[in-house]
Amino acid sequence: MAHPNKPQHAGKLSVFALGGVFEIGKNMYVIQYGDDIVVIDCGSKFPDESLLGIDLIVPDITYLMENKERIRGLFITHGHEDHIGAIPYILKQLNMPVYGTPLTLGLIKGKLKEHSLSDKDLHDIHTDSVFELGSLKLSFFRTNHSIPDCVGIAIDTPEGTVVHTGDFKFDLSPANKQFPDVHKMARIGERGVLLLLSESTNAERPGFTPSEKLVGERIEEAFQKAKNKIFLTTFASNVNRLQQVINAAAKTGRKLLLLGRSMVNVVKVSQELGYLDIPEGMIIEPKETGQFGREQIAVLCTGSQGEPMAALSRLASSTHPLITVDPGDTVIFASSPIPGNERNVASTLDHLYLLGAHVIHGGHGGTGMHVSGHGSQEELKLMLTLMKPTYFVPIHGEYRMLHQHRQLAVDVGVERENIFILRNGDVLDISEGQAVSTRQVPAGNTLVDGFGIGDVGNIVLRDRKHLSEDGIIVIVVTLSRQENALLSDPDVISRGFVYVKESEGLLGEVSRIVIRTIEELQESGNDWKWSLLKTKTKDSVGAFLYAKTKRRPMILPIIIEV
Amino acid sequence: MAHPNKPQHAGKLSVFALGGVFEIGKNMYVIQYGDDIVVIDCGSKFPDESLLGIDLIVPDITYLMENKERIRGLFITHGHEDHIGAIPYILKQLNMPVYGTPLTLGLIKGKLKEHSLSDKDLHDIHTDSVFELGSLKLSFFRTNHSIPDCVGIAIDTPEGTVVHTGDFKFDLSPANKQFPDVHKMARIGERGVLLLLSESTNAERPGFTPSEKLVGERIEEAFQKAKNKIFLTTFASNVNRLQQVINAAAKTGRKLLLLGRSMVNVVKVSQELGYLDIPEGMIIEPKETGQFGREQIAVLCTGSQGEPMAALSRLASSTHPLITVDPGDTVIFASSPIPGNERNVASTLDHLYLLGAHVIHGGHGGTGMHVSGHGSQEELKLMLTLMKPTYFVPIHGEYRMLHQHRQLAVDVGVERENIFILRNGDVLDISEGQAVSTRQVPAGNTLVDGFGIGDVGNIVLRDRKHLSEDGIIVIVVTLSRQENALLSDPDVISRGFVYVKESEGLLGEVSRIVIRTIEELQESGNDWKWSLLKTKTKDSVGAFLYAKTKRRPMILPIIIEV
Repeated sequence: MAHPNKPQHAGKLSVFALGGVFEIGKNMYVIQYGDDIVVIDCGSKFPDESLLGIDLIVPDITYLMENKERIRGLFITHGHEDHIGAIPYILKQLNMPVYGTPLTLGLIKGKLKEHSLSDKDLHDIHTDSVFELGSLKLSFFRTNHSIPDCVGIAIDTPEGTVVHTGDFKFDLSPANKQFPDVHKMARIGERGVLLLLSESTNAERPGFTPSEKLVGERIEEAFQKAKNKIFLTTFASNVNRLQQVINAAAKTGRKLLLLGRSMVNVVKVSQELGYLDIPEGMIIEPKETGQFGREQIAVLCTGSQGEPMAALSRLASSTHPLITVDPGDTVIFASSPIPGNERNVASTLDHLYLLGAHVIHGGHGGTGMHVSGHGSQEELKLMLTLMKPTYFVPIHGEYRMLHQHRQLAVDVGVERENIFILRNGDVLDISEGQAVSTRQVPAGNTLVDGFGIGDVGNIVLRDRKHLSEDGIIVIVVTLSRQENALLSDPDVISRGFVYVKESEGLLGEVSRIVIRTIEELQESGNDWKWSLLKTKTKDSVGAFLYAKTKRRPMILPIIIEV
Repeated sequence: MAHPNKPQHAGKLSVFALGGVFEIGKNMYVIQYGDDIVVIDCGSKFPDESLLGIDLIVPDITYLMENKERIRGLFITHGHEDHIGAIPYILKQLNMPVYGTPLTLGLIKGKLKEHSLSDKDLHDIHTDSVFELGSLKLSFFRTNHSIPDCVGIAIDTPEGTVVHTGDFKFDLSPANKQFPDVHKMARIGERGVLLLLSESTNAERPGFTPSEKLVGERIEEAFQKAKNKIFLTTFASNVNRLQQVINAAAKTGRKLLLLGRSMVNVVKVSQELGYLDIPEGMIIEPKETGQFGREQIAVLCTGSQGEPMAALSRLASSTHPLITVDPGDTVIFASSPIPGNERNVASTLDHLYLLGAHVIHGGHGGTGMHVSGHGSQEELKLMLTLMKPTYFVPIHGEYRMLHQHRQLAVDVGVERENIFILRNGDVLDISEGQAVSTRQVPAGNTLVDGFGIGDVGNIVLRDRKHLSEDGIIVIVVTLSRQENALLSDPDVISRGFVYVKESEGLLGEVSRIVIRTIEELQESGNDWKWSLLKTKTKDSVGAFLYAKTKRRPMILPIIIEV
């Protein structure tokens, strides 16, 4: 029998996602022709609240581990966490050369350093780069997004050309003059695209996403109007927006203080690589703020999503050690909350209002202080039109986005039966121009908790959930080795269940129930099994506590034999 | 010394919130003149994810318990959970007559029944009711909201008139013909209002909230267009919207199936009390659906917020026992997600799309299938204008809403220094026309967990949080009574930390560390205290596990002496 995870049609083209479809996050796509594999992106995803204690989710790379020797390289489209966040975790298990544009590699280097990993096998992509790797030839086209230096990838294979867009919008007046390479896209399309993989984040949003340039204009207006200190928060990785803040500060004669680890890091990397143009002497250190009037200071900080430990949240709760938000200061949210973060953002807003700040945030109706980094329906249709693909796989989105993107593709003329909505692990095989999706490779979530990658599974999570809701009762029973006789009263200890001082009676009753359970067992002789005592203790104590409290703590009986 | 929680100015007017300001939820307001207290509303609030295992939050009623004999009645403005949800919990501790409009009382009766409480002391409010209770005289005015039978309350006191708006919008073409009593409001205002308490939910939203009638038109259009089954979800308590769904079903010849406990309950109560007009034979039972074609069936169900156990969520995951969503069916969300529920709603949407349903939901840009039940800025200004209060306290909102509502009040002519933003427990005292806020009464969150009301405090919650993130390690050490000598190897049990089968080596190492700790203590003699062993065990095991796993499980050493 063939190995189940080995390609069954050597010499044919196979394409699949190991992450990124039916979800937002942990993007990883695999293009394989015969014995040549290239991997596109290697992203992480933040756990939702059901994954208690989990730090991060990365793709399951079983398939790649089993096909190590075939991997020609990992190509990164841009430097966002959902495209680069898993790199250190994956590289610990799997060596492969990593390719990216200069800013992307700059951000990856920082991650590798944090994990004490080598950055020797990183390779620059420029928009005119061409890499021939076995039977695959890769070239690139520039796109726009909410971070500079993004590329889409065209992969020529003997079966035809596969195009992966990366994340994109068509910002035809980009703040950083990195124009989208529309002509190159048109040439690729004209040459013929067998398969297009295009991102779907805003497939439900009608129209055309506004240019980042408009945000710059709003920021400048706000800077002109503000009288006291200005605090502005946005994603640190939105380097073009940072540049526009720098420009506004320069025009209004303000110094700039950076707060938040990722903000300081991104500005450093971007400036070193020439992606940020910062006037000499504009950036100041916290200790220098005393030298300037409040009308001369702007603060660029993390915390746009209300993250509890981020700079802006600490400013809002007046616990930031370096600087305070004072009445009359202006706080600008150049951002909108990601679904799931609404409550944290609202709490930050409330605290800022309480401090007397003038707060500019999206709320009801936009402020023009934020535009999406993802193309809306007309832009997705433009990409489909330029590429004219025979086959189309919508990627990078939850199902309803992929579903809507399929409809857009049909609207611009792609044959409906040539559009495949794939789940992670679903393989699209193309051979002699015919595409089928009939097989799967392993795919799923690998959970990172501390140093552990994949060692926390369902049982551990189920226990954490149980513990989190009603706590635990530990019951220690000391029995004599010979007669299974109780040597002292059972010890009953609770954590996270009830406040012990007020519940001594309750826990004493638990102890008596356990004694009674042992007595009943003794009546039937002294050769009963401990497992029986454990089960009976769990049942009787559990029923008692539920009747008394309507709670179901985890009950952990421990039997000690002496 | 006077009792700190007794009113210090008998004969004067005091007003405060025990819940509802600086938050959304658990509304409870207290109006006291001398020895006469009336309480307005008695709501609950759902816990956020930080309150692990907590079922519900209700107001802290310490003040009311200490002033029992002064309470003349609890008046309820309308039947939403944030206004009635705490009633059974509070009535268990505190007897007081409850006043409400017929629908409100109908919903309260259901709650009392669930908690096996008497409904003898409930009293009807009609819009022309007047109650004289000691020095207080209460009258009412009809308002509109997303549930019928809402009232605002005017309380005449010897000091002047206090008006509490309840929740309101001005729906001048209400679906149920319960017009807002604008003339009565005008008369109250003309007679003179000393203090207005007005709700602030939409104080940040410009304009005028659209009429519920528009939603009815959109629903009818969707019913006309749909070919197969229709599923519509909305808040069960939005009885006017339910009526409009019934009307649409009647016009398009569809039977109506109700799914979800609260939907069935609200329809039953509302129909009995005459708030719903349902054509004979329209409501069908699940077992009857087989008798009708798919174009003859509409389903009205709970689950508009993506609640995992609600009817629509179970339909979406194909686990509902009674009926299925099939390709070509229409699913209408006549709702918008409450902040915090976005992810659950998105997941429900995805599953419905996967079933091949035609889904109508808010998403990007509205569908007209939902309007808010709360008045926007122009309506809040209209209320302020009608009431012309001397003093104003914005209520029912998080701080930024209260803050914005203050600005609206200033804009319509209320003196800024006459506006008080109070926290829960802050008392506004008015005497001889002068208002001051200088004292507090106890106020806060009382947590309900199972049968326990207020017995879960910070220590228990902190333990639950700790347990939820990294689990627990229980270490049982058996020592001889005489010499503190170890009688057997320590038992090490973990839950929610690591998967035990894969971590036997790790837990074995923990056991050895504990043995070594005891040996070290023994070297210094055998008269050391157990608390020292516990501390040393926690420290050494904690440091070892953090170094190995970067996790910090709760460590619970238990010492058994034999």
